[in-house]
Amino acid sequence: MKSKILLPADRYFDPEPRQNKIAQHLYAAVANLPLVCPHGHVDPRMFADEDYSFGTPVDLLIIPDHYVFRMLYSQGIPLGHLGVPRLDGGQVETDHRKIWQIFADNFYLFRGTPTGMWLTHELHSVFGIDQKLNGESAQDIYDQIAACLESPEFRPRKLFERFNIEVLCTTDMATDPLDHHRAIHKSGWGGRVLPTLRPDAVMNIDSHGWDKHIHALSDISGLEIKSYRSFIQALENRRAYFKENGATATDHSTLTPYTEELSDLEAEIVFQRALNGQASAEDATRFTGHMLMESARMSIDDGLVMQLHPGSYRNHNPLIFERFGTDKGSDIPTPTEFTRNLRPLLNKYANNPRLTLILFTLDETTYARELAPLAGHYPALKLGPPWWFHDSLQGMLRYRQQVVETAGLYNTVGFNDDTRAFPSIPARHDLWRRVDANWMAGLVARGIVDMADAEEMIIDSAYRLAKQAYKLDQVQ
Amino acid sequence: MKSKILLPADRYFDPEPRQNKIAQHLYAAVANLPLVCPHGHVDPRMFADEDYSFGTPVDLLIIPDHYVFRMLYSQGIPLGHLGVPRLDGGQVETDHRKIWQIFADNFYLFRGTPTGMWLTHELHSVFGIDQKLNGESAQDIYDQIAACLESPEFRPRKLFERFNIEVLCTTDMATDPLDHHRAIHKSGWGGRVLPTLRPDAVMNIDSHGWDKHIHALSDISGLEIKSYRSFIQALENRRAYFKENGATATDHSTLTPYTEELSDLEAEIVFQRALNGQASAEDATRFTGHMLMESARMSIDDGLVMQLHPGSYRNHNPLIFERFGTDKGSDIPTPTEFTRNLRPLLNKYANNPRLTLILFTLDETTYARELAPLAGHYPALKLGPPWWFHDSLQGMLRYRQQVVETAGLYNTVGFNDDTRAFPSIPARHDLWRRVDANWMAGLVARGIVDMADAEEMIIDSAYRLAKQAYKLDQVQ
Amino acid sequence: MKSKILLPADRYFDPEPRQNKIAQHLYAAVANLPLVCPHGHVDPRMFADEDYSFGTPVDLLIIPDHYVFRMLYSQGIPLGHLGVPRLDGGQVETDHRKIWQIFADNFYLFRGTPTGMWLTHELHSVFGIDQKLNGESAQDIYDQIAACLESPEFRPRKLFERFNIEVLCTTDMATDPLDHHRAIHKSGWGGRVLPTLRPDAVMNIDSHGWDKHIHALSDISGLEIKSYRSFIQALENRRAYFKENGATATDHSTLTPYTEELSDLEAEIVFQRALNGQASAEDATRFTGHMLMESARMSIDDGLVMQLHPGSYRNHNPLIFERFGTDKGSDIPTPTEFTRNLRPLLNKYANNPRLTLILFTLDETTYARELAPLAGHYPALKLGPPWWFHDSLQGMLRYRQQVVETAGLYNTVGFNDDTRAFPSIPARHDLWRRVDANWMAGLVARGIVDMADAEEMIIDSAYRLAKQAYKLDQVQ
Repeated sequence: MKSKILLPADRYFDPEPRQNKIAQHLYAAVANLPLVCPHGHVDPRMFADEDYSFGTPVDLLIIPDHYVFRMLYSQGIPLGHLGVPRLDGGQVETDHRKIWQIFADNFYLFRGTPTGMWLTHELHSVFGIDQKLNGESAQDIYDQIAACLESPEFRPRKLFERFNIEVLCTTDMATDPLDHHRAIHKSGWGGRVLPTLRPDAVMNIDSHGWDKHIHALSDISGLEIKSYRSFIQALENRRAYFKENGATATDHSTLTPYTEELSDLEAEIVFQRALNGQASAEDATRFTGHMLMESARMSIDDGLVMQLHPGSYRNHNPLIFERFGTDKGSDIPTPTEFTRNLRPLLNKYANNPRLTLILFTLDETTYARELAPLAGHYPALKLGPPWWFHDSLQGMLRYRQQVVETAGLYNTVGFNDDTRAFPSIPARHDLWRRVDANWMAGLVARGIVDMADAEEMIIDSAYRLAKQAYKLDQVQ
Repeated sequence: MKSKILLPADRYFDPEPRQNKIAQHLYAAVANLPLVCPHGHVDPRMFADEDYSFGTPVDLLIIPDHYVFRMLYSQGIPLGHLGVPRLDGGQVETDHRKIWQIFADNFYLFRGTPTGMWLTHELHSVFGIDQKLNGESAQDIYDQIAACLESPEFRPRKLFERFNIEVLCTTDMATDPLDHHRAIHKSGWGGRVLPTLRPDAVMNIDSHGWDKHIHALSDISGLEIKSYRSFIQALENRRAYFKENGATATDHSTLTPYTEELSDLEAEIVFQRALNGQASAEDATRFTGHMLMESARMSIDDGLVMQLHPGSYRNHNPLIFERFGTDKGSDIPTPTEFTRNLRPLLNKYANNPRLTLILFTLDETTYARELAPLAGHYPALKLGPPWWFHDSLQGMLRYRQQVVETAGLYNTVGFNDDTRAFPSIPARHDLWRRVDANWMAGLVARGIVDMADAEEMIIDSAYRLAKQAYKLDQVQ
Repeated sequence: MKSKILLPADRYFDPEPRQNKIAQHLYAAVANLPLVCPHGHVDPRMFADEDYSFGTPVDLLIIPDHYVFRMLYSQGIPLGHLGVPRLDGGQVETDHRKIWQIFADNFYLFRGTPTGMWLTHELHSVFGIDQKLNGESAQDIYDQIAACLESPEFRPRKLFERFNIEVLCTTDMATDPLDHHRAIHKSGWGGRVLPTLRPDAVMNIDSHGWDKHIHALSDISGLEIKSYRSFIQALENRRAYFKENGATATDHSTLTPYTEELSDLEAEIVFQRALNGQASAEDATRFTGHMLMESARMSIDDGLVMQLHPGSYRNHNPLIFERFGTDKGSDIPTPTEFTRNLRPLLNKYANNPRLTLILFTLDETTYARELAPLAGHYPALKLGPPWWFHDSLQGMLRYRQQVVETAGLYNTVGFNDDTRAFPSIPARHDLWRRVDANWMAGLVARGIVDMADAEEMIIDSAYRLAKQAYKLDQVQ
């Protein structure tokens, strides 16, 4: 059945006319503002190489996107049938039209999901598709996308400009030489693509291949890491290098937000055990907790904004992990506790306004109970937008309803898209802007804030707060 | 004060006209669809005995319904005053008109509760009552219900037909000979009433009277249970017997969803300790966790759908338990963790699409945090509808808002009424259908899905998904 | 920029016309009902001293209100700049016009917060301000408030009468001689101001300065406390004294709702260790748990209503605590468990309708999961209104949506303002009355309750339930 994509101008707004009209008014003020993208996972290579091509529609939209293939897998479709590469190089489907057909046949699974909303918006506004995606329209739509992707207008740099991206921050390992970022900078192209330091692989001593990462860190820093002290020096070295190359932030991912300060001696002893491959699980927990505190200390010194993304149980499904690797849709959230876990760090560093610590959570029960009260008190603490599974219409609404009454709007930091799916970026920001316009319209329609306040708030939410919190408004 | 029961045609829908109209349209498509009842606690005896009578209005509506008498008890009315029988045979109120009067005098307590909504709907549409129930109307209404209950039109089989029930699954102990189900089948009556195997009493080695249940299991299976191995054989025997008699599912209730695989030797040692009355609390936890894994293994073998209902702290109030027994309104939910607890089972069995594991929870914080991400990944996993206290208008709304964005509609399994109160079944399904029609109308009114999609979704939710997930659409 | 305060007559109601009109109708029925204030922290001195003056606008509205200054602190404004006194007597800002300017410049931080809503309402309806508070209007508004505060019409007793307060309960230490309450009573002024016994300082053996409080308790009770037995006697003595002076309730604040009954011998041993300064953390936990049970026992004896406020991690930020003391905005909620923790107390005492135990929580996840099922069963248990951070528009809505379906309206106890900010009391009650009018209007507009029921419910919620639950309707 052929039918048109539905993208009403007032989509995602409450249908009640009073609120709907205010939402349209507020949204109009931000619909065309530049996109500030302070946290995400786009590959910088695509901007370093002027002729970078996205490949087929399946290379672009399915194979790299675990939001998409996890849903298909949950309904019994093997990942190999979707072209997801095996670690052992074993055979997977290579006929991309066939993969696309499976995807289109099952696109109804995404009804009511953010992935469904983003993809529909992206297909329409990036690729000009106006038919609904289903089994019947599948090959037509494949043709249209494929044709686009061959055109020079669909090179990443062109899309970056068309998307009106003001700045895009990537996420990069501590051992990354930042060659792509340097190449972008040297190329003379005006797009602002900045690195972000994510030192998990060297900071979490129980992470896979830690010893190799430490060797790589020695190599790239030119500091032989034989001690905790030299490890800290190497990290400081990399922070300086990232900062020179435009970074304004670091990012940290841990299973819990546990923090604890070790003495230099304790830290050294644990680090030596790790170097000898003898660190215990408890060592790893304590060392990570200590390194979060060290990172806060360094942030106060060098001004890099510190982000913390705790609470994901990575690679929950070993069958998938062993066959296909990480980031394959089996990272599952866990209950997370902040009040006690984060207290040592907050007590020591978060009274200092030189620190900016941006917290994320996958446990929404912490919004009103722990995070909003903490952010409504400690000067250094700010709350990141709803993360991952909660980066959705209802997730954003819950976030606003549970955070703002206690923390205020001004202890939150606007939006970030947190995506590796570059062409979905405008759709993601648009969803946020619409949801916030509608939320603020609800405040106006209920007499909670007046229109003048709401007109400031929507610009703060859509643009200003992200830029300010991540220090992207500062000359570098 | 006499006043009429209020049951507006658009009840439970948002008053906003755009959404309200769409909700009415979607609801109309499912209002008269047959009822699929894949999980519940109706006594099969009422269909085996053609002349079964429900007794008085109090026998039908108050004495067996812990949703009703727990609320009255919470306001200081002793259970004995409501005719709830004591275990010791001690005296309780036997004047059912007096009990009914207490109930009616206090019916205002149920304002805004699902019990209030179900009862109002049931009184009106099953018994033709059009007055509001209160102290003044009490005896009139008693008369009207009593007159109905004497009529042959109110025999269970007649109501089953009038309710348009397509299939009704009961819940039955592993040691149940299924005589009633066999009698129903032999009677030639066309109603489809199927058993469901609930082996808790033999699987949870710390459950009350476990040794007696094991003896009964030996007797009915004809296998002398002297070892873990013979216990497993007896269970497999009963599963085969239930399946022969039409069962398509098993059901398991545990305090937590903890799973762990024991070796055969460990399982045997623990089982022997249990037979000797020497099993520890830890033994019980581990053995139950192991038996959940065994049940998943058996489900893959025999195709029975596996349901898991964890998280209820049963018989929280010993005074009530000792005087009146189980299921008397003092089962209280507990915080429940799935990500780590269920991992061993999911890792071993849930990549296999031959398994269907349907999870329920009493801890709504797990919807968005754990259950939706798990169901949105593992092929075997599906999410049951909001359970027990959450089987309510707001509970359903929270479920849809927290589950669907991550798991999609198609990793959920529609509705089940989970009730022993047979005449309340149409009211319960009607509430679900209305809430989902309204929720989907909200998606349409906000441009999230289009009307064509919503028209499919409402039929999926009201009818098709339950039938499919529980394999009730398969010829047997 | 000068602009007018916005306080539309239908504020906080859903904009949808059907629900909005019903909400206005229901609200009108309670808008002018007397205020029943069964729990709060107003200083009774202000009513004992006929000439009590509130000081400057800053003395009244900023320096004592941790809701206000914690938000300013969270944005990097030092507490000393706001005039918050240091424990060491060190210098803080004394120019109240300067402090007021900082506050006004930053008043936008409170957009969408309950503090913002209360203050706006209070400025307008108590002080007659009609301009929005911002940097430009700051000094004008300061002048207007200051002029009011000098007028005899703004003495506390006059405001008490103008606010139409029927009864106001304070919170008082066990060692308080209640001189102010006695002075109020003797003065012949008609305002009803009652004490509430809060014995935390003597019951929690790990609380700061416990030994001094025990000495003070000995002194005021005239009973030398050398043993657990004499401690209990002294407590009973104080309960009797408070009751003589009009108290109808006690209040208890603990980190968790853990309860455990110690034998007399165990209690004595632990108490002796505490007297000797040798009690362990475990002793403290167990003794507090035991004393909660003792308090329930005493409440059954003397009829005082028992309140429990668990779950706050007090003084999370030692820097602030050491410099400025308690109640400075760094009390942070923690996850709280009731089902298991409170079971010993509930089992032993909560089947007795002579006990009224009113529970509060800072962990909203317990509303639907634990508190509503418990309150919907145990006769003694009632649920207090949303507390502290959750005393807000969205917090109230979540409370109603998560509590009422299982516990009913009639196991809740209406509203209490829980504030030390006396002139904010009308604004707080007004917010509650509006939110509940709107919530009930939603029930009517959706056909869940009829108008006649809602008209009773709104009076119950706004007035009757609080009076009844706290026994303030009983002649004393």
